[in-house]
Amino acid sequence: MVLSVKQIAEKIDAAVVGDPSLEISGGGAFEDAGGDQITFASDVRFLKQLSGTGAGAVIIPEEYDGFDANSVKGAFLRSKNPKRDFFRILGLFHPPKTFEKKISPGTCLGKNLILGRDVTISANVTLGDNVCLGSGVVLMPGVYIGDDAVIGDDTVIKPNAVRMERTVVGRRVLIHPGTVVGSDGFGFTPDQDRHEKLVHAGYVQIDDDVEIGACNTIDRGTFGRTWIKNGVKTDNLVHIAHNVVVGANTLVVAQAGIAGSTEIGSNVILAGRAGVSGHLKVGDGSIVGPGAGVLKDVKPNQIVSGFPSMPHKLWLKVGTLIPKLPEMRKRLASLEKKLDQFEKQ
Amino acid sequence: MVLSVKQIAEKIDAAVVGDPSLEISGGGAFEDAGGDQITFASDVRFLKQLSGTGAGAVIIPEEYDGFDANSVKGAFLRSKNPKRDFFRILGLFHPPKTFEKKISPGTCLGKNLILGRDVTISANVTLGDNVCLGSGVVLMPGVYIGDDAVIGDDTVIKPNAVRMERTVVGRRVLIHPGTVVGSDGFGFTPDQDRHEKLVHAGYVQIDDDVEIGACNTIDRGTFGRTWIKNGVKTDNLVHIAHNVVVGANTLVVAQAGIAGSTEIGSNVILAGRAGVSGHLKVGDGSIVGPGAGVLKDVKPNQIVSGFPSMPHKLWLKVGTLIPKLPEMRKRLASLEKKLDQFEKQ
Amino acid sequence: MVLSVKQIAEKIDAAVVGDPSLEISGGGAFEDAGGDQITFASDVRFLKQLSGTGAGAVIIPEEYDGFDANSVKGAFLRSKNPKRDFFRILGLFHPPKTFEKKISPGTCLGKNLILGRDVTISANVTLGDNVCLGSGVVLMPGVYIGDDAVIGDDTVIKPNAVRMERTVVGRRVLIHPGTVVGSDGFGFTPDQDRHEKLVHAGYVQIDDDVEIGACNTIDRGTFGRTWIKNGVKTDNLVHIAHNVVVGANTLVVAQAGIAGSTEIGSNVILAGRAGVSGHLKVGDGSIVGPGAGVLKDVKPNQIVSGFPSMPHKLWLKVGTLIPKLPEMRKRLASLEKKLDQFEKQ
Repeated sequence: MVLSVKQIAEKIDAAVVGDPSLEISGGGAFEDAGGDQITFASDVRFLKQLSGTGAGAVIIPEEYDGFDANSVKGAFLRSKNPKRDFFRILGLFHPPKTFEKKISPGTCLGKNLILGRDVTISANVTLGDNVCLGSGVVLMPGVYIGDDAVIGDDTVIKPNAVRMERTVVGRRVLIHPGTVVGSDGFGFTPDQDRHEKLVHAGYVQIDDDVEIGACNTIDRGTFGRTWIKNGVKTDNLVHIAHNVVVGANTLVVAQAGIAGSTEIGSNVILAGRAGVSGHLKVGDGSIVGPGAGVLKDVKPNQIVSGFPSMPHKLWLKVGTLIPKLPEMRKRLASLEKKLDQFEKQ
Repeated sequence: MVLSVKQIAEKIDAAVVGDPSLEISGGGAFEDAGGDQITFASDVRFLKQLSGTGAGAVIIPEEYDGFDANSVKGAFLRSKNPKRDFFRILGLFHPPKTFEKKISPGTCLGKNLILGRDVTISANVTLGDNVCLGSGVVLMPGVYIGDDAVIGDDTVIKPNAVRMERTVVGRRVLIHPGTVVGSDGFGFTPDQDRHEKLVHAGYVQIDDDVEIGACNTIDRGTFGRTWIKNGVKTDNLVHIAHNVVVGANTLVVAQAGIAGSTEIGSNVILAGRAGVSGHLKVGDGSIVGPGAGVLKDVKPNQIVSGFPSMPHKLWLKVGTLIPKLPEMRKRLASLEKKLDQFEKQ
Repeated sequence: MVLSVKQIAEKIDAAVVGDPSLEISGGGAFEDAGGDQITFASDVRFLKQLSGTGAGAVIIPEEYDGFDANSVKGAFLRSKNPKRDFFRILGLFHPPKTFEKKISPGTCLGKNLILGRDVTISANVTLGDNVCLGSGVVLMPGVYIGDDAVIGDDTVIKPNAVRMERTVVGRRVLIHPGTVVGSDGFGFTPDQDRHEKLVHAGYVQIDDDVEIGACNTIDRGTFGRTWIKNGVKTDNLVHIAHNVVVGANTLVVAQAGIAGSTEIGSNVILAGRAGVSGHLKVGDGSIVGPGAGVLKDVKPNQIVSGFPSMPHKLWLKVGTLIPKLPEMRKRLASLEKKLDQFEKQ
């Protein structure tokens, strides 16, 4: 596909500075893009070296003026949100896979299936009984959906992901391969010298516009629900235990884990491999740093880091001092020695 | 389903204080349960506020007396183990899925399959050659069982779990979705400038009454076995390397990892994201705290925490002092300054 | 199968000291091997106690002389690389599974499939469109291969692994069960109060002789490729984010994670649960210790450990001092007190 700079500008409502007739056939990274590609520059690092890209066109912030209009083959496009708009254009060159709206042979459908319009059920999919699939749902190969699950319109479940019974999934949700939603929480009670399994009578509810990464494990509630609210995005290999609540638009980065019954607020960021203990609250707008271990509540709009977690600014200092422990210990010993000598005098 | 308080009391052998005729239609959490639901109170926190639940019936410890018999609509039930008994009753209201005892179309069975009675093999299951499945085994959709695997009576393997060749699984084992048991250990030896793969001739043995969480990886032995003993329970995303032994009734919480040839004793708890290095021994009855990194042997009945791991009580102090490193450093500098001044005098 | 010591010696080009006619029927660990088994001793620990093994034959280093030729039933075999040669012999007793070179019924093949010779496509495999499979490729049950993927000769993909669209896999690659290669990177950009998904137009390239463990997640590039170079080996539950480059012959141990756009050099070792932040470089030949958190570049041939990471030798000291923080604090307070008294005098 080829689009002129003019056509691109219209799609993202951008003003053009330069040649609107240049033909663009794709997008590229700032450093790598060629003369028939478009790129973007949204932060100072790239804006300062605009003449350094080989891209034919560059999307820049609306208000930015520090560029030489002749430094690109084609044009600059002024945008309210260069990164967002660049990726929207990139999406035109890489349209999402379209699926044949059909039920493939080799699927196994349970009893009382309720189907919306234009549903895709791929090969080797298995559905339990009383499943309800909204319009436009896509189940890719090898997916398993348990009994009584409800999946909202336009949700896409990638290959070999597993949704256990009673899971409720909203609209426009994307679940990546290998992820398991709705298996039993880790709950046992001692009975004599063994652990007796607790029935997990609850379910998982995933609201609209959620994206769940690959090989996540999201357990169902003991009673009630484990609840992933609107717009949450999780990366790969994330663990979310029974009865956890993750607030709207929160981001959970790879290998993070949230223990049972913890409530994560909205617009929170849990960085890579952050861990949060059970029965805690992490307030709205907070950030938990990479590898941090949270063992107590975090108030809203706090940044915490480290293991055990502490205010991020403090952790930045602590992180530089931990390697100085041997030096500190030497200084301590030297002081003790000096003071001993004083005492002897 | 509906059960009277009297019927419930009989099932758990509990004495009733109150109205045995009240009809109960389910279980709920202490804070949420309604008048037709049962709940339980087993620790002081809840026992002190028994009148605060809306539940129609409450299971309490046998010997407890500090309650007002009229504070619930129905009755109190005196139990030796309120939590266990509550979940047993909850299980009556949420009976486990029953499976049609049949081999679904669309399965692929290998040669020399040996089958017990009442086996369920779901759609899209593939079995290798010489597989032996005990009576009552349930293989859910998408499961793969390798050659020469043996699976004991009444074991349930959830969707898309993979058991590689020669794995031996006991009776009443439950394996959650996406888990891989019996793949090669991570073993290589240098050969010139590359890593040569070592043959993994061993297998995984899982004993009776084990539960393995979702997306676990349990590698087979280099020689001999990786061995998960009776009653072990693992949470999600747990890694167990080649030739590890996990002792009876040990709990391994989410995202924990055990490196090669390490022996974990019986009745151990590895908390979430605990890591244990290779070729170590963790003694019976020990507890390894959340996120702890164990780099040396742990004696029986120890509690260790932290990274690197140390006695838990020490870690509690250390954890409060790590954030005080900047303050300690300032105090050290101030002492040095003062002492310098002394010296000058 | 049975091999004489003489036959074994010929296969690994080893000199025999002892009885070449002894028949060997398998291999075993040094401590466990029996009289009809072979074992190996390659380090001082085992070489010092050669008479302690029950093995019928022992492979030892070529130049080693400190043994009593009569201490084994059969013979010693002198080898340039005892461990490597032992495992090569073990591989003869445990030959890899051979596959019927056929396309099973119950597979779902896309359009425009290009097939080499002797390809095995097992039951319940699904292929997208325009897939190219080299000669000798084995796809085990439940594998999904997306559109436009290319898989090189003699590559084996284990059950229920998922390769998303456009993935390029080299020759003699082994991918373990449950692993996901080529799903979207974790990339979003703020748009008003929500996160807008960024198109991931890139792909994953895996070069020759790579082995990827079970339940790994390797994301595709935002643009361009995530690149796993020749001879890389990863353990289980490893996360490799979009646009990461992993250099040749690097080892990545279980539960390690590499954030987006980071470049790991060649011949690096990332130990278990090591984490590396995004946009960093870890130089050739470096080692990152277990559980280490790398937040800045690592130069070539460095060893770093700890959280945050520091030179390994320093970490060894620091690791012994962290548990001494309470003691250090007491000593500090004691010094302050003494100095106060001095001042008062």
